[in-house]
Amino acid sequence: MPDVVTFGEAMVRLAPPHFGRLENARSLDVEVGGAELNTAAGLVRLGRSAAWVSRLPDDPLGRLVAGRVREAGVDDRFVRYTPDGRCGLYFLEFGAAPRASSILYDRKDSAAARMAPGMFDWGTILAGAKWFHVTGITAALGATAAEVVGEAMRSARAANVRVSFDLNYRSKLWPPDEAARVLGDLLPLADLLIAGEADAELLFGVTGGDFAEVAAGLSDRFEVLVVAGTRREAPVVWRNRVAAVAWTDGAVYESAWHEVEVVDRLGAGDAYAAGLIHGLLDGDVQKAVDYGAALGALKHTVPGDLPWVSAAEVEAVLNGDGLRVRR
Amino acid sequence: MPDVVTFGEAMVRLAPPHFGRLENARSLDVEVGGAELNTAAGLVRLGRSAAWVSRLPDDPLGRLVAGRVREAGVDDRFVRYTPDGRCGLYFLEFGAAPRASSILYDRKDSAAARMAPGMFDWGTILAGAKWFHVTGITAALGATAAEVVGEAMRSARAANVRVSFDLNYRSKLWPPDEAARVLGDLLPLADLLIAGEADAELLFGVTGGDFAEVAAGLSDRFEVLVVAGTRREAPVVWRNRVAAVAWTDGAVYESAWHEVEVVDRLGAGDAYAAGLIHGLLDGDVQKAVDYGAALGALKHTVPGDLPWVSAAEVEAVLNGDGLRVRR
Amino acid sequence: MPDVVTFGEAMVRLAPPHFGRLENARSLDVEVGGAELNTAAGLVRLGRSAAWVSRLPDDPLGRLVAGRVREAGVDDRFVRYTPDGRCGLYFLEFGAAPRASSILYDRKDSAAARMAPGMFDWGTILAGAKWFHVTGITAALGATAAEVVGEAMRSARAANVRVSFDLNYRSKLWPPDEAARVLGDLLPLADLLIAGEADAELLFGVTGGDFAEVAAGLSDRFEVLVVAGTRREAPVVWRNRVAAVAWTDGAVYESAWHEVEVVDRLGAGDAYAAGLIHGLLDGDVQKAVDYGAALGALKHTVPGDLPWVSAAEVEAVLNGDGLRVRR
Amino acid sequence: MPDVVTFGEAMVRLAPPHFGRLENARSLDVEVGGAELNTAAGLVRLGRSAAWVSRLPDDPLGRLVAGRVREAGVDDRFVRYTPDGRCGLYFLEFGAAPRASSILYDRKDSAAARMAPGMFDWGTILAGAKWFHVTGITAALGATAAEVVGEAMRSARAANVRVSFDLNYRSKLWPPDEAARVLGDLLPLADLLIAGEADAELLFGVTGGDFAEVAAGLSDRFEVLVVAGTRREAPVVWRNRVAAVAWTDGAVYESAWHEVEVVDRLGAGDAYAAGLIHGLLDGDVQKAVDYGAALGALKHTVPGDLPWVSAAEVEAVLNGDGLRVRR
Amino acid sequence: MPDVVTFGEAMVRLAPPHFGRLENARSLDVEVGGAELNTAAGLVRLGRSAAWVSRLPDDPLGRLVAGRVREAGVDDRFVRYTPDGRCGLYFLEFGAAPRASSILYDRKDSAAARMAPGMFDWGTILAGAKWFHVTGITAALGATAAEVVGEAMRSARAANVRVSFDLNYRSKLWPPDEAARVLGDLLPLADLLIAGEADAELLFGVTGGDFAEVAAGLSDRFEVLVVAGTRREAPVVWRNRVAAVAWTDGAVYESAWHEVEVVDRLGAGDAYAAGLIHGLLDGDVQKAVDYGAALGALKHTVPGDLPWVSAAEVEAVLNGDGLRVRR
Amino acid sequence: MPDVVTFGEAMVRLAPPHFGRLENARSLDVEVGGAELNTAAGLVRLGRSAAWVSRLPDDPLGRLVAGRVREAGVDDRFVRYTPDGRCGLYFLEFGAAPRASSILYDRKDSAAARMAPGMFDWGTILAGAKWFHVTGITAALGATAAEVVGEAMRSARAANVRVSFDLNYRSKLWPPDEAARVLGDLLPLADLLIAGEADAELLFGVTGGDFAEVAAGLSDRFEVLVVAGTRREAPVVWRNRVAAVAWTDGAVYESAWHEVEVVDRLGAGDAYAAGLIHGLLDGDVQKAVDYGAALGALKHTVPGDLPWVSAAEVEAVLNGDGLRVRR
Repeated sequence: MPDVVTFGEAMVRLAPPHFGRLENARSLDVEVGGAELNTAAGLVRLGRSAAWVSRLPDDPLGRLVAGRVREAGVDDRFVRYTPDGRCGLYFLEFGAAPRASSILYDRKDSAAARMAPGMFDWGTILAGAKWFHVTGITAALGATAAEVVGEAMRSARAANVRVSFDLNYRSKLWPPDEAARVLGDLLPLADLLIAGEADAELLFGVTGGDFAEVAAGLSDRFEVLVVAGTRREAPVVWRNRVAAVAWTDGAVYESAWHEVEVVDRLGAGDAYAAGLIHGLLDGDVQKAVDYGAALGALKHTVPGDLPWVSAAEVEAVLNGDGLRVRR
Repeated sequence: MPDVVTFGEAMVRLAPPHFGRLENARSLDVEVGGAELNTAAGLVRLGRSAAWVSRLPDDPLGRLVAGRVREAGVDDRFVRYTPDGRCGLYFLEFGAAPRASSILYDRKDSAAARMAPGMFDWGTILAGAKWFHVTGITAALGATAAEVVGEAMRSARAANVRVSFDLNYRSKLWPPDEAARVLGDLLPLADLLIAGEADAELLFGVTGGDFAEVAAGLSDRFEVLVVAGTRREAPVVWRNRVAAVAWTDGAVYESAWHEVEVVDRLGAGDAYAAGLIHGLLDGDVQKAVDYGAALGALKHTVPGDLPWVSAAEVEAVLNGDGLRVRR
Repeated sequence: MPDVVTFGEAMVRLAPPHFGRLENARSLDVEVGGAELNTAAGLVRLGRSAAWVSRLPDDPLGRLVAGRVREAGVDDRFVRYTPDGRCGLYFLEFGAAPRASSILYDRKDSAAARMAPGMFDWGTILAGAKWFHVTGITAALGATAAEVVGEAMRSARAANVRVSFDLNYRSKLWPPDEAARVLGDLLPLADLLIAGEADAELLFGVTGGDFAEVAAGLSDRFEVLVVAGTRREAPVVWRNRVAAVAWTDGAVYESAWHEVEVVDRLGAGDAYAAGLIHGLLDGDVQKAVDYGAALGALKHTVPGDLPWVSAAEVEAVLNGDGLRVRR
Repeated sequence: MPDVVTFGEAMVRLAPPHFGRLENARSLDVEVGGAELNTAAGLVRLGRSAAWVSRLPDDPLGRLVAGRVREAGVDDRFVRYTPDGRCGLYFLEFGAAPRASSILYDRKDSAAARMAPGMFDWGTILAGAKWFHVTGITAALGATAAEVVGEAMRSARAANVRVSFDLNYRSKLWPPDEAARVLGDLLPLADLLIAGEADAELLFGVTGGDFAEVAAGLSDRFEVLVVAGTRREAPVVWRNRVAAVAWTDGAVYESAWHEVEVVDRLGAGDAYAAGLIHGLLDGDVQKAVDYGAALGALKHTVPGDLPWVSAAEVEAVLNGDGLRVRR
Repeated sequence: MPDVVTFGEAMVRLAPPHFGRLENARSLDVEVGGAELNTAAGLVRLGRSAAWVSRLPDDPLGRLVAGRVREAGVDDRFVRYTPDGRCGLYFLEFGAAPRASSILYDRKDSAAARMAPGMFDWGTILAGAKWFHVTGITAALGATAAEVVGEAMRSARAANVRVSFDLNYRSKLWPPDEAARVLGDLLPLADLLIAGEADAELLFGVTGGDFAEVAAGLSDRFEVLVVAGTRREAPVVWRNRVAAVAWTDGAVYESAWHEVEVVDRLGAGDAYAAGLIHGLLDGDVQKAVDYGAALGALKHTVPGDLPWVSAAEVEAVLNGDGLRVRR
Repeated sequence: MPDVVTFGEAMVRLAPPHFGRLENARSLDVEVGGAELNTAAGLVRLGRSAAWVSRLPDDPLGRLVAGRVREAGVDDRFVRYTPDGRCGLYFLEFGAAPRASSILYDRKDSAAARMAPGMFDWGTILAGAKWFHVTGITAALGATAAEVVGEAMRSARAANVRVSFDLNYRSKLWPPDEAARVLGDLLPLADLLIAGEADAELLFGVTGGDFAEVAAGLSDRFEVLVVAGTRREAPVVWRNRVAAVAWTDGAVYESAWHEVEVVDRLGAGDAYAAGLIHGLLDGDVQKAVDYGAALGALKHTVPGDLPWVSAAEVEAVLNGDGLRVRR
C-alpha cells in the first residue's frame, strides 16, 4: 500500500516550444500535470510510495495521462476510466519579462470534473496510507467534486490518515466568495494547510503583520496544526529567489533562500508540497521546509509540471554542493 | 465581394508526428481544418475569391484559426468572435496498413456549435456572391446550427446565389435517422449535392445499380440539379487511386483516375468540392469533375487539411506532365 | 500477481530520424526495447497483466528504461538495480530498398549481461503466474546469463507455469555451434517454441519439406508441444506481407495474410509472440496464430519496439474492418 | 481603407535554432520580417488597420512572405507580384555575451530593390489613410527605390496623410555620405522622425548635450514636428533595459523603463514605431512614447520580427501588472 | 594527390521537412549539394581519394559548404574563397504522386558563377590525378564559367588525365541551342560522356532506335570513347526501378535493375557517375555500370544530395544480400 | 604538416534538448567532443593548422567522430581505425541553478582506451610540428594509454616540439593518488602546464597564497616554463564571469574579465588552451592569456564542445566591440 494518496485532476498540457505564441504555433509540446499528481510524483522522487486517485476518459488522451503517471512511478491503480467526460487540457505560453507566462484552460466537462460521491471506495484506497493530500483546485471543479473532496478528507480522518490541503485558489475557476464558502468547510478536516498570505486575506480576511500572524490566524480559524507557505522574489521571469516557511504551534521554521534559473515554473508549488509532506511524515518541520524549498527550487529547472529531479540532486542543494559540472 | 462564400466550423487539429500514437506523444503538430474552410481555400488556390463564415472563441486558439484562414488567402471578415464557447479540437493519428488513421474529436461546446439564427447577416454576407457552400457537418453541430444552415441556404436561394451541399455524414456526430431528417429538409435548397453511394443508402434508402441510378434517385428526391461523388481504391493507407464523377440531367461525367501517394488524406474531399464548384462556376460539368479530381488528388500529397497546392500543379496533373523533378 | 512473466534485457535504442545515417546524425530518437519486454507490453495491450524481470544500472539510462516499462503498463517490481554494469544500447538505421535497415549493438558489459544465478528469487517471481517467456537472446548474453535462463525455466516447470521460448538466433551475439549447444539444453524446458525454418536448420540441422515437417522435427527433438513461426514476403522495405503459422500434435494452424506498410519493423516478432501466448493462455491455437499475426502486423505501423496499438485495433484487423478513417 | 499604410521590403529570415551557427546548421527556422511590415503588424496588434505596400517575386518565397503578412492581419492588397527579381533573404545567428547576434544579408536583386517610380498608384493606395510610414532601409535599396520613397512621401503630403520616417541607417547597405544625401532630401517630407543620436551625428553632424538638443537640431534642419528615439542599456545579450523618448516643440516626453528578457530582439524598434504612431494618431505624445516603449519591450519576448503580442499584454505592461502566471 | 578531381558549384539546399510546402514552411532542413561534389563524395565512399574544385563566398554559408565537403572526406584544398559573389541556394519541395518534386533555384551571382579563366592553377590541381570530372551545369553558369570548364578539360587532356562529362542539361539555366553550342565545343575533350537519350536528341539531334544507336551517334559526333546512361521506371514518386547502361566501341554493358524506395532522389545521377568512374579507373566497363547502378540506387535511400552509404552496402546490393535487418 | 598536434580521445556526446532529463528523454542531440580535439579545433579557428591523433572504432560512430573532426578543419590523417573497442559516449544534462549540469560517462573499453605503445609512429606524426598538446584525461584512460602519452611527449621533446599539458583531473576516471603518480611522471616532459589551484593541491599538495605562488610551486616541482589557469565566478549556471592568468619566470599575466551568457560550457577550458597555445606559438604570454580568455569566453556561447566561433569574433571581444547586432 502506498504511503501517500493524492487526489485530483491531471490535464494534458500543450505548449508552443521556445517562447512561441499559441496564436501562430505549428507544434505543441505535450506534458501532463495536475497539482496533486505533481505532489505524488515529488514524493516518489524523495523515496516515498504514492498513489494518485482520479477519473480519466477512456480514450487516448486519458491513456496518455495514465502512462505518464506510471512512468513517474506513481501508483495508478485507483484511477477510474469512463466514457463520460473528456480529458482536461491546458495551453501554456512561456513568458519573458515584461510578459508573464499565461495559461488557457480548456478543462470544462472533464471526466474528473464529473466525479460524484460514491465513485471512489475511500476505505480501500486509504487502507494502510499515512497521508492524504488534496488541493483547492479539485474542490473548484464543481459542486459534486467538492463533495467528493469532503468525503475523502473525512474518510482519511476516520482512518487516522493525516491530511494536507493546498489552498491553491484559482480565480479562473471560481469567484472568491464561493471558494471561501466551499474551502472554509473543508479546511477544518486538514492537519496541514498550505496557503499564501494574499489568498488568506482574499478568501478569509485573515491578515497579519507577518507570516506567523497570518498562520496563527488560519490555525485558529480552521484548527489546522501546521500552516506552510512559500516566499518568492521574482523581478523577472527567468530568474527568481525562493524559500519556504512553516508555522506550527507558534513556532516559525524557515528554509534557506535558493537562487533559481527558471526553465519551467509550473508545478513548483506542488513539488514544495511534496517536500513538506516528506518532512512531516518524519515529524520534522524543519526538514519539511528544507526539503520543500529544495525540491520546489529544483522543479523550476526541468521542463513539465512533474519534478523530474533525483533525491541526490535534492541532497546536493541542501548540502550547498555548488554548480560545477560533476565529471 | 468574394465569388464564393462557405460556412462552417474550423478546428485546431493536433497530430503526433511520424505515425506516433497520441497515447505516448511528446509533441503534436498543429494544423487548422474544417470542411467548408478547406473548400474555400481550394477555391482561392484555383484563382477564385472566397470568404469563410464562422464563429470563433475570442482567445488564442480562435486567433490561431483566423490567422491560418487569412494566410490561406480566405476572407475572414464575416467571422464572429465570442467569449462564449471554446475552440473545437480534433486529434489525429496517421495510420499504416493494416491500421486505419483515426480521429478523436473534442469539439463539444465550441463557439461554432453555439451559433444561433440571427447571428449572421446573410443579406450582407451573400451580396455579390455567386456561390454558397456548406456541408452536413455544420448541420450536425446541433439543432440551432442546423437552423442557421437553413437560414443561410434560403438566403442564398433568395439572392440567386447557387448552393452546394456536401452530405459528409459523420457517425460520430449524429445517428443516421436524425441526420436523414435534418439533411432531408436542407437538401431541396441545394443545386449541387455531393454524396457517396453508401451514405445515400444509409440515410435515405436511395440505391441503384450504379452511380447514375443513385444520382438520379437523389435528384428526384431532393430536386438537386447536379449530384457528384468520388471514387477511391484504397487497398493500403499510403497509396490510393482516386477519380471523380458527376451526374446532371441524366448524363454522367467522369474524370481520369489518379494514382496518389498519401501524405495526408484529410481534406481531400473538400478540395474535390472546390474543384467541382470551380468548374460549375464556369458552367462546365466536365471541367468540374476534372478539376475536382485533380485538386482532390493533389491534396493527398501535402500535410494539413488545406490544399496547399498551386494552380500550376493542378494544370500539370490535368496535362499529365509526369513526375520528373523540374530543374 | 501478473499472468505472464517475461525475462531478458532491454536496451535504449537510438536512431536518426527520417532515414538518416548515424555517420552524420545530429539528433537521435530514443526508444526502449528488448525482446521479452516487447512481448510483455504486447500482452498488456491485449488485456493480460505481465511483469518483466531484468537487471538495470542504477543510473539515468537504467531509470529511462524502467520509466518506459511502467508507462507501457508492464510490472517492474522484479527489476534489480545495480551500480555494476552499464545500460545496453543499440543504434538503428532505418532502411529503404535496396538498403536494409541496420543495427549497431553496444551492449557489452551491460547490467543484464552480468546477471548470475541466485540473483532472482524465481519462486516469488513466478508465484501465481500462468506463463513464463524468454528468448535465445537472453541466453546469448553470456554463460552465466544462460545459466539464469535455465534456472528460471526449471523454476517455472516446477511451479507448473507454462514456458515459451523464442529462438531468436542473433549471429552478432554468438556463433551457431555455441548457440546450438546452449539452446539445445534449454529447449526441452519449453512448452512453446517459436522458431524460423532457417534457424532450425542452421542451429540444429532440422529440415523438412514444409513448416509442418520442420515443426515436427523440432518437437521430436526437444519435446515441445507447440512450434510456431512467422511468414513474411518482403520484396521491399516499406511494404511486406505477413502471416503466422503454428503446429501442434501434427496439426497446422494458419492465420490470414496481412498487408503491412512498415513504419518500424523492430519488435514485430515479439508482438507476434504476445499474440501467440494470449491465444494459448485460452488454450486456442487458432486464436494464438490469429492474434499473433494481427498484433505482429500492427506493430509494424508504430514507431519503437513496443506494440503501441489498442486491443480495439487488433479486433479491427481480425474483423477486416478496412482502412477508412473513422469519423 | 486601412488607417495606416507602410511601405518597404520584407525578407525571409533564416536562423539556426538555439544559438547554433550557420556554419554547421542542419535546420533553419523561417520567419518573415521587414521594418515597415513589422510596424504595420504592430499597429494591427494595437487595433489599427494597416496595409503594407511592397513588391514580391511571383514564386513560393514571395507567397511565403505574403501569407505571413495576411496571417498577421496586415492588408496585402497593394503588394505587386513580379517574375522579375528574387526574394530578399537574411540569415540570423543569435548571440550570447560576449558574442553579439549577427546578420548575413542576401537581399541583392530582390523584387523590392527593383521597384521604380510609377509602379505604385499612390493616389489609390493612400486614399482614406491617416498615416504613412517608411524607413531609411527602403531608401537604401537603390537609387530608384529612393525615388519611389520620395514619390510616396510627396503623395502622402499632398493627400494630407501624416508621414513618419525611421532613419534606420544600415552600414551594410550604404555609406554614411550617400545615406546623408538621399535621406536629407526625404526627411523634410516627414512629420515624425525616429532617429538615434549616434546616427544623427554620423549622417548629419547634428549633436547635442542630450536628446532634447539633438532632437531640436534635427527638427530645425528637417522641419519635422516630432523627433523620437529609444534608450537601451544592454550590458549582456539576454537582458536589457529599454525606454522611449520623444521631443516636440521643445518638450520632451519619456516613458517608463522596462526590464526585458530577450528572446528575439529583431523588430523591437519597428514595434516601437507602431506604438508611437498609435499614440500620435490620437494626438497624444505621452501615449506615443508609452505605447512605443511597451510594445517595443514586449517584442523582445517573442520569436520572429513581428510583434506577436496582444493589446491586453501591452495594457498589462502599462499597468505594471507584474509577472505572475495568470491562472 | 587525389585520384579524382571534380569541378563545379555546390549550393546550400533548403527544404521543408516531411513534404511541406515552402509557401507555409516554418523550418527548412539544410543540405549541401552540387553535381560534381556529389560525384566526388561518391568516389570517396567507394574508397577513392577525390578533390573538389570550386569557388565559395568567404562567409558563413561558404564555410557551411566547405565544412560539409570535408566531412564527406572530399579534399577541399583547391577551393577558392572570395568576398565577391554570394552562396548559391536552392529550395526543394519533396513530391508525392501526382505531384512532382520541385526546385526553386536562387543561384544567380554566386561566387562560383563568377569564376573566370586563370583563377585556378590546373597544372598544380591535376598533378598526379587520374581522372577529371565535370558536368554541363558548370558550363551553364555563364560564359566565363564555360571557358573555365574548357580550360580545365584541356589541361586534363594535356596531363593525360582522363575526362568525364555528364551532360546534365538544365532547362532552367539555359536554352537548348545555347547549351548545344557550348557543350558541343566541350564534349570532344571528354573520354566518357554521360547523357540521356532525350537530351541527346534535344540538344544535338542525335537519335536512334535504342541506346546503342544513340551512344554510337554521340561517340561519332564527339569522339568520346564511352557513352553511359541510366534507365528509370517511375510510375510514382516514392518507388522507382533503376538500372545503368554503357556503350563502348560498339558493345553495350547493362547492370541489373534495382527496385528503389525513394527517400531523396537528388544526387542519384551524380552517385551513378561516381560508380561509373570507379569501374573505369579499373578499366572495367561492366564494373562501371554495376557500381554506378548500385551506388545510384542506394543514393535514393538517404537524405541529402551526397551518397552517405558505405562500400559494404554497395557490395550488399551487388551481391543481392536482401533486405533483412542484420542483427 | 600541421603546426600543432594534439592527442586524446573524442566521444560522441548525447544530450536531451532544452534542459530535459535523460530519464524521460525522447530525443538526444548529437555532438562530438574530446579535450584535445576541442583544442585542435580552437587552433584552426584562430588560423593555425592542427592535427588530432587518436584511435576510433571502425563503425558508424567512429566515422561520425571522424566526420566532425574533418568538418572542423582538423587534420585526421593520423587517426587509426580498429575493429577492437567501441566508441566512447557521454550523456550530458544541462543544468539551471540550483541544479548543476551533469555528465554520465560511458567510455569504458573504447578504442582509444585500448591504445598501446607502438601504435602511433610519433616520428612521422610530429615531423614539422611546432607544438604538441595532451591532457591528463588521456593519461587516465588506462595504464597503457598513459604509457602512450609518455611516449608521445618524449618524442616531442626529442624533436624540439614544444609540449603543453592540461592537468584536467577527472575524479570519475581515477583516484587522486593514482593520478598524482602517473601525472607526476609526465609533467616534467611539458613546457606549458595548465592547472587549477584546487587540483594542484589535491594531487600534488602544492599550495600558495595566490596563483603566482602555486604556479611557482608547480614550476619548481615539475620544471615547466609556463603555468596557466582560468578564473571563473559562477553564482548561477547561465551567467558567469571568466578570465585567464599565466605565470612564467616569476611574472604573472592576466586577461580582462569577460561576462558570459552560458549556452554550453563544455569545452571552454579546451578553447582556452587553444588561445594559450596560439599566443605562445608567437612567444607572447600576454597574447596567450588574452586569446585564451576570449576564445574560452566565446566557447560558452555556442552549442557543442567545439568552439564554433570565428577569428573575427575573437578579435571583436578583444577590441571590446560590444553586443549590438551588426547590420
